[in-house]
Amino acid sequence: MSEEKKIPYKIYLEENEMPAAWYNVRADMKNKPAPILNPGTLKPVTFEELRGIFCDELCKQELDDTTPYFEIPEEIRNFYKMYRPSPLVRAYCLEKKLGTPAKIYYKFEGNNTSGSHKLNSAIAQAYYAKKQGLKGVTTETGAGQWGTALSMACAYLGIDCQVYMVKCSYEQKPFRREVMRTYGANVTPSPSDTTEVGRKILAEFPGTTGSLGCAISEAVEAAVTQEGYRYVLGSVLSQVLLHQSVIGLETKAAMDKYGIKPDVIIGCAGGGSNLGGLIAPFMGEKLRGEADYRFIAVEPASCPSLTRGKFVYDFCDTGKVCPLAKMYTLGSGFIPAPNHAGGLRYHGMSSVLSQLYHDGYMEAVSVEQTAVFQAAEEFARVEGILPAPESAHAIKAAVDEAVKCRETGEEKTILFGLTGTGYFDLVAYEKYNNGEMTDYIPSDEDLAKGFAGIPKFSGNEI
Amino acid sequence: MSEEKKIPYKIYLEENEMPAAWYNVRADMKNKPAPILNPGTLKPVTFEELRGIFCDELCKQELDDTTPYFEIPEEIRNFYKMYRPSPLVRAYCLEKKLGTPAKIYYKFEGNNTSGSHKLNSAIAQAYYAKKQGLKGVTTETGAGQWGTALSMACAYLGIDCQVYMVKCSYEQKPFRREVMRTYGANVTPSPSDTTEVGRKILAEFPGTTGSLGCAISEAVEAAVTQEGYRYVLGSVLSQVLLHQSVIGLETKAAMDKYGIKPDVIIGCAGGGSNLGGLIAPFMGEKLRGEADYRFIAVEPASCPSLTRGKFVYDFCDTGKVCPLAKMYTLGSGFIPAPNHAGGLRYHGMSSVLSQLYHDGYMEAVSVEQTAVFQAAEEFARVEGILPAPESAHAIKAAVDEAVKCRETGEEKTILFGLTGTGYFDLVAYEKYNNGEMTDYIPSDEDLAKGFAGIPKFSGNEI
Repeated sequence: MSEEKKIPYKIYLEENEMPAAWYNVRADMKNKPAPILNPGTLKPVTFEELRGIFCDELCKQELDDTTPYFEIPEEIRNFYKMYRPSPLVRAYCLEKKLGTPAKIYYKFEGNNTSGSHKLNSAIAQAYYAKKQGLKGVTTETGAGQWGTALSMACAYLGIDCQVYMVKCSYEQKPFRREVMRTYGANVTPSPSDTTEVGRKILAEFPGTTGSLGCAISEAVEAAVTQEGYRYVLGSVLSQVLLHQSVIGLETKAAMDKYGIKPDVIIGCAGGGSNLGGLIAPFMGEKLRGEADYRFIAVEPASCPSLTRGKFVYDFCDTGKVCPLAKMYTLGSGFIPAPNHAGGLRYHGMSSVLSQLYHDGYMEAVSVEQTAVFQAAEEFARVEGILPAPESAHAIKAAVDEAVKCRETGEEKTILFGLTGTGYFDLVAYEKYNNGEMTDYIPSDEDLAKGFAGIPKFSGNEI
Repeated sequence: MSEEKKIPYKIYLEENEMPAAWYNVRADMKNKPAPILNPGTLKPVTFEELRGIFCDELCKQELDDTTPYFEIPEEIRNFYKMYRPSPLVRAYCLEKKLGTPAKIYYKFEGNNTSGSHKLNSAIAQAYYAKKQGLKGVTTETGAGQWGTALSMACAYLGIDCQVYMVKCSYEQKPFRREVMRTYGANVTPSPSDTTEVGRKILAEFPGTTGSLGCAISEAVEAAVTQEGYRYVLGSVLSQVLLHQSVIGLETKAAMDKYGIKPDVIIGCAGGGSNLGGLIAPFMGEKLRGEADYRFIAVEPASCPSLTRGKFVYDFCDTGKVCPLAKMYTLGSGFIPAPNHAGGLRYHGMSSVLSQLYHDGYMEAVSVEQTAVFQAAEEFARVEGILPAPESAHAIKAAVDEAVKCRETGEEKTILFGLTGTGYFDLVAYEKYNNGEMTDYIPSDEDLAKGFAGIPKFSGNEI
């Protein structure tokens, strides 16, 4: 087909076709996401309450659910030009391998040293911190993608970056740590004796290897107790989804250029930063009644917040120092089983995506990890790219959709987000290659333990 | 300046602008590289002698020093489209950081899972093997870049890939090994008991952790003793430089498109695959008297084949099973000091590049590794990309040239090759970050030991 011939393997926008503004999907939502609450007063958090933790411009973005577009500052656009536009890839080889009439596209966000889409928001958050005259930012990191991205952004802007890295990751992923150090970040294994909360936890649990919840608590404490610092976070927040809309905006521009309209849009979902960013402009069209698309969130069966969680107010962090958000949650105390590989281990889900899912604009599926790694390996062998385990969740769902098309003969256009590369996840690949990888689906009893930790107040019944 | 504004951060060619043929620089050389010799007869190797080791089409390419262009088969061009064209990047941020009037460009070959330019030749060699009806190929790998690239190419084409990986790398770089296994390669630590030469070495040196020379010998033995297998090599050979010319051809096309003419072209040099590929079409113009450029080969001070080696016939491998090539060499027994990080550890240099250097068409410099890692880190922080240690040699030389321009005020245009990424070299980065990296320059006495191993025959006096 001549139409086929015209579409290259990779579509790159020109630099002058890159988005000049981020899109805030909340502006087009009739049912807005419920406001985040001050955990003390259970009242919506105010700008004044929030600005002690986040820098001012980011507080504004977080609280603004009506402004549809936010201009991307020139310095951020210039940084984006170092690794963006990212390619929209036509998966010709995967289609051939699957023998499907479906047309498969993926937006690849792994072509930067941090190895994932996280850099899109890291540079924005670091930029506003610098613009406010701050000395630096603090954050936590688990697997290390977000910490790496933030280190790169801060190195570029010349501001300080303090990363609290979950101690077991710090020890098991020394390479992630060294990338951050190469970019000049100060990386501290958490829990540490550098914060009060860290010392308290160390006294109580001397041998602990840490958790994301603890690292968040340390990072927040470090931000509020040091002059000229603020805390930043790589997912879940509405501001992060705003910045990540650059993924979807570029994708849509590239597809429009070639007259491609996706039928199904698929993204992996942990806290929601990638999925929310990828679908943003398409969801905007759906919300405004201009077009229709199927959206599928893909989550691990071992951490199934959308497919098996409760849509209630919950703490955003295990340490319970952050505001409450209304979202699909497994309870802030939920921790995925030890055999779970890679990210996508957050107990909740972006309140924007949660609301959209609740209102029926989006579907969700859960997949088991050996099937995910099988899809990852199949994809790597034909498409070349070694995907991150997180991204491979989307691959698995896209392959399932394409196989359905093979069975029905439908020529659907499938778009998925390939969020990153798996160079730092080879311990998990080794397990898979050795046939030692296992699956785990939590029982209803397991989940009930997590739900028990959801805060109880009038109107928040689970 | 308006001219400045027009040049984007990254220049991507369209797919239809990608080269359709490789360029064979030997065709334009008045003094051809000396022929490779049969080590038994000391006569030029014939096609018939060579075809037991390499597949037929590659033997032809290896021996052909007159045909200027070889068409790139469509299947290889389609594979190239999965990760090429690679970006030609304008290093705006590095220029600003250095405060130089120089304009710096780099051709970045690291945006593929193998993480380097090696894939350009891996797919070509695997393709011709498959076309000849072979079952598979064998090779050796040290650091693992070449083995990874070959694994990817073979997975794509569905042929078998057997990699002999130097035992100490196999054990110290488990992640490299796992990437290869994920792509379906059979990876054997060398020396092994799967070959006669391996068993012999193990009996003689029971505790040995292997060497590249030994791995080559095992890979060659595996190729010639198995029905339907041939041996492939990732650098040094003229066929490899031919395939790698895609780097330079794309670079030149991108520069021509924007009216850019480089004054200085810089590449790191181990066996010469990247440098030879990058400079090929520019060198062709120089050889034909159509244009002039300065070419600079950058090598490690710890393995200085061009700057301190002898231009004589030598064995291409430590095991002395391969033909003799006339090249700048430190002696096939030369092994860089243990503190040497990354690749660029080959004792000799492509005979094409050796001849060009000998005839004064090219310069060479050597640099010390702590200075190289300093340049790597500076580059990473402003340009985002974490470079491979090999690539960082070119960065160091480019920075030195740009700093000279700052001092003289010259607005030179500097082009260098950024061959790959450093995700699997973080042990070396950690050493650098901890201030534990050391330099080593071999003494004349050290070098004399290597020279003593160069074969002695009439006309080959050192």
